[in-house]
Amino acid sequence: MTPVITAFAASPDKGRGLARDMRVRWAFEEVGRPYEVRLVSFAEMKQPAHRALHPFGQIPTFEEGGLALFETGAIVLRIAESRPGLLPADPDQRSRAIQWMFAALNTVEPPIVEREAAGYAERDRPWHAERLPMMDERVTKRLADLSARLGDAEWLDGEFSAGDLMMATVLLRIKGSTLLEAQPNLAAYLARAEARPAYRRAFEAQRAVFLKAQGG
Amino acid sequence: MTPVITAFAASPDKGRGLARDMRVRWAFEEVGRPYEVRLVSFAEMKQPAHRALHPFGQIPTFEEGGLALFETGAIVLRIAESRPGLLPADPDQRSRAIQWMFAALNTVEPPIVEREAAGYAERDRPWHAERLPMMDERVTKRLADLSARLGDAEWLDGEFSAGDLMMATVLLRIKGSTLLEAQPNLAAYLARAEARPAYRRAFEAQRAVFLKAQGG
Repeated sequence: MTPVITAFAASPDKGRGLARDMRVRWAFEEVGRPYEVRLVSFAEMKQPAHRALHPFGQIPTFEEGGLALFETGAIVLRIAESRPGLLPADPDQRSRAIQWMFAALNTVEPPIVEREAAGYAERDRPWHAERLPMMDERVTKRLADLSARLGDAEWLDGEFSAGDLMMATVLLRIKGSTLLEAQPNLAAYLARAEARPAYRRAFEAQRAVFLKAQGG
Repeated sequence: MTPVITAFAASPDKGRGLARDMRVRWAFEEVGRPYEVRLVSFAEMKQPAHRALHPFGQIPTFEEGGLALFETGAIVLRIAESRPGLLPADPDQRSRAIQWMFAALNTVEPPIVEREAAGYAERDRPWHAERLPMMDERVTKRLADLSARLGDAEWLDGEFSAGDLMMATVLLRIKGSTLLEAQPNLAAYLARAEARPAYRRAFEAQRAVFLKAQGG
């Protein structure tokens, strides 16, 4: 049975790979599993049928047989456990890969998303200019710590893992910013992740949705 | 071999159970595993020896044999996988329990921590009063969705799981606030979690560290 995921019918990122279905598509590509996509509109996402799959009314969701999941961390972990390619077989190495998934989502992403959300919601407010350096500093602190740990390594802990996949999708949100460019090893790490054939396939697949909506 | 975790020598929460070692202590208690605690000062947390265990210079960490982990999500998952009590045996139910761990850490916690951090860092700034309703609204939105999903159930998905453990520790941060009290089923859910014998033992153990530091 081919798993089915949901994605934005009209992604606000215009096909730049920032919507969270990108993580799930990339995970499927890394382990070589086919998947199907059901596109949902913003209105549909808030309806009871979608909320039954995702209580917070977001995308992506994952359905396979009788199982329905939300939260990209849980979906990527499920995919990583289904086939080799994203989690080491050794239990200790596996725990460390999962640790980087949580670090991406709970330690590195929140200050990046907070800064991004303020950029949308508060950009015209009188305090935004004064708050921006404070928010930048929080992001920079996390990135500096991450940069120090990565050092000259190719990936965060040995072979590429689901932890790197999640961390790269978080760093993608600030690609090209002075915040990320200030840590050249992290910018290079992100570039290595984006160069992976599985990433390219996932990126093109989500971009095709945007291009089709544009052309249609 | 008894696992060793780290915790604050002087927790800023004054033994209220808000420091993140509480999650790990509680998980150990739920599965019935002994553990040892090494207390670290704020200065020690930023030193290379501690950063080798935790790249972001925080607590808790987890050491067992040759394995060292940071991130409470990964540590609690490791403990939950080591003994029965926090994860269902059925693979689909297990994935759903893990989904609630990620939901707690990546969907519900960030707006709560953002509001809390602003309360510390920006309370005296001229814009704080105007930003507070906006931050409250973000928290309320998440809580309302969570409340709708929980409904009249005792726990989030069947038996108590690691997902409930993480969600309860997140809700604990706003215990007694009007934000939480506005969702009576969530307030009752938190009270049920706090009433668990394993929670009580973990709470008393972390509180004893504070009381000893006070008395000493």
